[in-house]
Amino acid sequence: MASIFSKIIAGEIPSYKVAEDDLYYAFLDISPLAKGHTLVVPKQEVDYIFDQSDAMLAGHFTFAKRVAQAIRKAFPCKKVAVCVLGLEVPHAHIHLIPMNEESDVDFRKEHLKLEPEEMQEIARRIAENFV
Amino acid sequence: MASIFSKIIAGEIPSYKVAEDDLYYAFLDISPLAKGHTLVVPKQEVDYIFDQSDAMLAGHFTFAKRVAQAIRKAFPCKKVAVCVLGLEVPHAHIHLIPMNEESDVDFRKEHLKLEPEEMQEIARRIAENFV
Repeated sequence: MASIFSKIIAGEIPSYKVAEDDLYYAFLDISPLAKGHTLVVPKQEVDYIFDQSDAMLAGHFTFAKRVAQAIRKAFPCKKVAVCVLGLEVPHAHIHLIPMNEESDVDFRKEHLKLEPEEMQEIARRIAENFV
Repeated sequence: MASIFSKIIAGEIPSYKVAEDDLYYAFLDISPLAKGHTLVVPKQEVDYIFDQSDAMLAGHFTFAKRVAQAIRKAFPCKKVAVCVLGLEVPHAHIHLIPMNEESDVDFRKEHLKLEPEEMQEIARRIAENFV
């Protein structure tokens, strides 16, 4: 069965898309820790990040770098944090989270609830900074 | 001034080394979230992970993949989590953390305090599984 992320990539489930190329897709986390919190996934469905070939893994993180640069331009921050946990959705996803202090990256804290219009605007701002 | 991690790589400060090659160095986090919690750093000092060139970034994560595979053999777990925060030490480091549930990766929980002998044994077990 296709993962929820595969359905998002296929357009069967809507998402706030930030960037994509032939192999990877980036979209806003629907339950963000910060404005700009983005997920980056390979289009080819693989559960565990390190089950990817070296080439796919390398491409995944260099694509994520480009997305992180766009996030930081759109939402200035000290750094963009990287987290890969992945026990909830079996489709490898890199969390990119704008960070000004390490406590910004605490998955147990209350997540933001943003209106669709604001999510759309956040995605637009990141997308227009993506090169 | 050299970062504490550069001093570790140079052998000026001791570490529980897990693996190294020409470009990268892996050693146990001295204040681990779980047994096997390892840091992977580039030998060339760079603060922000995404300031690395694409080639260095790709190499960093493919080296981390080999370390993660060794960690999982030495300390069986569902997945090895990946985190890059990096506001405390200005030398890009990938945290690799054995994980059975997502709450295992909570930097605010109490970290383990292990005796030097046990740290040495953990490093040895991971190192002997590194290929």
